Amino acid sequence: MDAWEGYLENHKDRFLAELFDFIRIPSVSAQPEHSEDVRRAAVWVKERLDRAGLENAEVMATGGHPVVYADWLHAGKDKPTVLIYGHFDVQPADPLELWHTSPFEPTLKDGIIYARGASDDKGGMLTSIIGAEAILKTVGRFAVNLKFCYEGQEEIGSPELGPFLMANKDKFACDVIYSADGLQWSNTESMIVLGLKGLAKLELSVKGPASDLHSGLHGGVLQNPLEALAKILASLRDNEGKIVVEGFFDDVLDPSQAEREDIANIPFDEEAYRKELNVPSFFGEPGFSTRERNWIRPTLDINGIWGGYQGGGSKTVIPSEAHAKITCRLVANQDPNKIVAALKNHIEKHTPAGVRVTMKGQGSATPFYIPAEHPGNILAKEILTELYGKEPYYTRLGGSIPISGFFKRAIGADMIGFGWSLASENLHAPNEFFPVENFYRGQKGYCMLLERLGEIKL
Amino acid sequence: MDAWEGYLENHKDRFLAELFDFIRIPSVSAQPEHSEDVRRAAVWVKERLDRAGLENAEVMATGGHPVVYADWLHAGKDKPTVLIYGHFDVQPADPLELWHTSPFEPTLKDGIIYARGASDDKGGMLTSIIGAEAILKTVGRFAVNLKFCYEGQEEIGSPELGPFLMANKDKFACDVIYSADGLQWSNTESMIVLGLKGLAKLELSVKGPASDLHSGLHGGVLQNPLEALAKILASLRDNEGKIVVEGFFDDVLDPSQAEREDIANIPFDEEAYRKELNVPSFFGEPGFSTRERNWIRPTLDINGIWGGYQGGGSKTVIPSEAHAKITCRLVANQDPNKIVAALKNHIEKHTPAGVRVTMKGQGSATPFYIPAEHPGNILAKEILTELYGKEPYYTRLGGSIPISGFFKRAIGADMIGFGWSLASENLHAPNEFFPVENFYRGQKGYCMLLERLGEIKL
Repeated sequence: MDAWEGYLENHKDRFLAELFDFIRIPSVSAQPEHSEDVRRAAVWVKERLDRAGLENAEVMATGGHPVVYADWLHAGKDKPTVLIYGHFDVQPADPLELWHTSPFEPTLKDGIIYARGASDDKGGMLTSIIGAEAILKTVGRFAVNLKFCYEGQEEIGSPELGPFLMANKDKFACDVIYSADGLQWSNTESMIVLGLKGLAKLELSVKGPASDLHSGLHGGVLQNPLEALAKILASLRDNEGKIVVEGFFDDVLDPSQAEREDIANIPFDEEAYRKELNVPSFFGEPGFSTRERNWIRPTLDINGIWGGYQGGGSKTVIPSEAHAKITCRLVANQDPNKIVAALKNHIEKHTPAGVRVTMKGQGSATPFYIPAEHPGNILAKEILTELYGKEPYYTRLGGSIPISGFFKRAIGADMIGFGWSLASENLHAPNEFFPVENFYRGQKGYCMLLERLGEIKL
Repeated sequence: MDAWEGYLENHKDRFLAELFDFIRIPSVSAQPEHSEDVRRAAVWVKERLDRAGLENAEVMATGGHPVVYADWLHAGKDKPTVLIYGHFDVQPADPLELWHTSPFEPTLKDGIIYARGASDDKGGMLTSIIGAEAILKTVGRFAVNLKFCYEGQEEIGSPELGPFLMANKDKFACDVIYSADGLQWSNTESMIVLGLKGLAKLELSVKGPASDLHSGLHGGVLQNPLEALAKILASLRDNEGKIVVEGFFDDVLDPSQAEREDIANIPFDEEAYRKELNVPSFFGEPGFSTRERNWIRPTLDINGIWGGYQGGGSKTVIPSEAHAKITCRLVANQDPNKIVAALKNHIEKHTPAGVRVTMKGQGSATPFYIPAEHPGNILAKEILTELYGKEPYYTRLGGSIPISGFFKRAIGADMIGFGWSLASENLHAPNEFFPVENFYRGQKGYCMLLERLGEIKL
């Protein structure tokens, strides 16, 4: 047994009590009345880093909620620098009436901690600090230089994080990042997330006649903006579900055969999923499985449409305007701004005669991809295999997390998920929970990671 | 000069004073607080018919606002029966602040009467009673049997008129109807309206997943209801503007070459019209002119669409539902219910995989057509040519007026427009007006009509 294992065991109760203290600070970043609580949480983290034996801990101003920094830089200049990321802000607790316990008073029941932030991400980020403390107090040093960056605005999309990192490039410079804000597959199976999607947004307005018109007086003579909108929207994908916007797939990084096999080997009860969604059948891009469509293929969704009369009964009107909102989830190496331009170009070409179209678009998240062979992933795989007694799955996420993009752009380093939450733990919903077992496993995981970082070749 | 011309001249001032009295009754059928005023107007009309020398005048209950009946049936059983139609209810006066004069206190200025109902239809319907009085007091008799039907619910769509006529078929039995609620082309040019459109309505809902879904977690795997709706709506017409719903044109009565030439000969400043609508170009069914598209061709319009997120910013949602409202304006001899069935059939066939569609449809007005050669129209043409010093235009209306359909179904008689309003007289808007000149011309027109009805062969 490693010395740090004994240390974790001996301080088990203290660590749990610390997590409870941490949770009791209602650091809700979305609600201005909790801004001071977010700040208190930052101070709590800074002091906890001090107590762990880490150095230069400080609460840094960002213009919004603060960032907490600390480091340990004694491995030597020739050694890599690894940054650990996490966040101490939490989602709002509303709707309060749906909670079975008080959201900011952690309740331990049958080995499960119920509280807002227990899983996302106070439990997770604390495992990384505890791991560092256990190694420092037993081994006494790290094989690499370490930096810690915990932020207080993740749950509101980290609006100031990008500019803050740009302004503090040197301070946060590193070779690779491990994020303590990450997911595992289940309580018994682990995963390594290789890809996250980017996001491009487009809002579209079709303008016809100067005002709403009587369909009797003016019917038949002009293009109806609602019909023009329908024609435009219907032109974006073919009837089989393939996106036919010119240039859309140009930069898509095709998955290797091995990656597709990895995905196919992950258990998936499609019929249960179809029933959960309550759709008559799945539908999507030909040539790809349901999971591949969500994980490794870019998607295009109309998120909202409106125009004309929406009330009861009927109104014989030719509306003056029609509107739609569209978003695309992108995969590596698509450029969100290039995709916005491609969409605009397509829509201009497919706008029927007799109406005018205006568009407002924005690339809002860069897709992220990190190969399974990345040295950081190889180490993660080794540790997860030991921790869970089984190799991790290589997965992707259909969603977008802008953080990794901010670090990539400012620092140039890739981010590897190394956290302990499960998607099923009501992360953004009432009755969030986190099994104590995973809190302990996470501490062990970070000890193993911090102890072995010297092995990786970056 | 005919004797009735002298009679009209001698009683000119009285007739104008009567119109003013009639207008002062605020008989707004849409507003319950004016129900008693509608009834007062009915009594006023009944007494006016008595004074004109007509017989059996009575206010008849309909379940809603009343109908006023009168007759003169002494031409003999072998002679045709002609029914005169008009309405004594008016539109609401709101918004009051936009009126320059009091809406129910008629104001005469520069030969124009400003008041609610002056044109639609108190001025018009009174010309028919005055005409009958003038003939009776001078000629002493009519060459045909006459019936009069004035109603008090035209401005709310005559909801009880259909059942009322069905229940009183014999009383209102006639060979042809002239409507004193009709339009002329301009102050110097007349018209005969040969066609009115029917109406079919359809409301459509597309249902996808059981609830709104996160486009990251579930993107790419299922049919988006908004996109499915767009595909369905885009399938109803081809890119050139031709409706491609199977069976849609089956019963369309094609206009004769002569009718198309009549339409082409009516002055039309298309460029001014385009500028008024402020559209970059016209758009409609290939092979037909702008006016033909509105007047003689059936149309299909999407009146409203909605679904998903319509607020500020973006929301990465795959909505659970999408909705649309559609109406079709129909021409003779399309059957509104058959068209609803054709639309439903088309939509079922064009619903993409992965969603469910529900529809609710209703045929709501039968198209109306009366040929220029109808004996009643030939007489109307002769009179209008004399009155205006120029032949009338043969026009159509893109809109629907259910009244003619109610009479056609219950009585089997066609209705010919013989009224004096202009579309420009703010009929349903503030500052409605009616030139005194047209009030006089209308009286003359009805004298000519009632004097010559014996000439027509029905």
